[in-house]
Amino acid sequence: VSEPTDPRPELEELSAVACERRLRHTTVGRVGVVVDGHPEIFPVNYVVDEAGYLYFRTDPGAKLHALRHAETIALEIDGFDTERHSGWSVLVVGDAYRVADPDLLDAVARSGLQPWAAGDKPHVLRLLPTKVTGRYLPGTPWH
Amino acid sequence: VSEPTDPRPELEELSAVACERRLRHTTVGRVGVVVDGHPEIFPVNYVVDEAGYLYFRTDPGAKLHALRHAETIALEIDGFDTERHSGWSVLVVGDAYRVADPDLLDAVARSGLQPWAAGDKPHVLRLLPTKVTGRYLPGTPWH
Repeated sequence: VSEPTDPRPELEELSAVACERRLRHTTVGRVGVVVDGHPEIFPVNYVVDEAGYLYFRTDPGAKLHALRHAETIALEIDGFDTERHSGWSVLVVGDAYRVADPDLLDAVARSGLQPWAAGDKPHVLRLLPTKVTGRYLPGTPWH
Repeated sequence: VSEPTDPRPELEELSAVACERRLRHTTVGRVGVVVDGHPEIFPVNYVVDEAGYLYFRTDPGAKLHALRHAETIALEIDGFDTERHSGWSVLVVGDAYRVADPDLLDAVARSGLQPWAAGDKPHVLRLLPTKVTGRYLPGTPWH
């Protein structure tokens, strides 16, 4: 007697190359930070530089408070097809710190990193990925 | 001399009613948990019950490990229009714990909460929202 077959696809790992490609082709992610001992999640626009560092802007609010010192944060991107029940996600974990170097700030400004909302969001944060993992459910059109 | 006007819209708060409506009309969110002192973010399917509690399934992995005891977590939903630079997000923060009550597990199963991937994901987690906040950039078609 054979086991009944589960018709749903298995969740699979994305390769490091696939994770990096998706990070470079996505512009909106979600940053996870620990605030007062619990996690919070905020959408951000981000860019990736040649070396693979991620940059995003923030303003002097809750997010920045949590990142005043170099600190381990998360950045997640994903895409879903709720009709086909397919999707993918990439999670980056690493230390983030506020960029102070004027040359680097200029380079980030030239990269086109621009907040969608009014206001300066003068602080640029740089995330150095130490762990990048991704998963997908087959059927996603981006696979 | 008047200030130059920033053409970008201001980020605005979503009302509690608008946050709840979006939570009830969305089926995929992202859970933030603290793992080894840093945040991690995972997509989940979830459902909301009459009382406003959120339920999602998980399997005995990293997520569950972080939630073995009642613990404060985050769940975020969002939507973006990268062409129009509009979007919205809702963040729920609250304590989550694993559901053991068979009647409640039955009710959750009947609600249609079903993981997309193969496998049982036998553990159901219940999130009791203590803080629900939302923001949007005008122009989003869901506003």
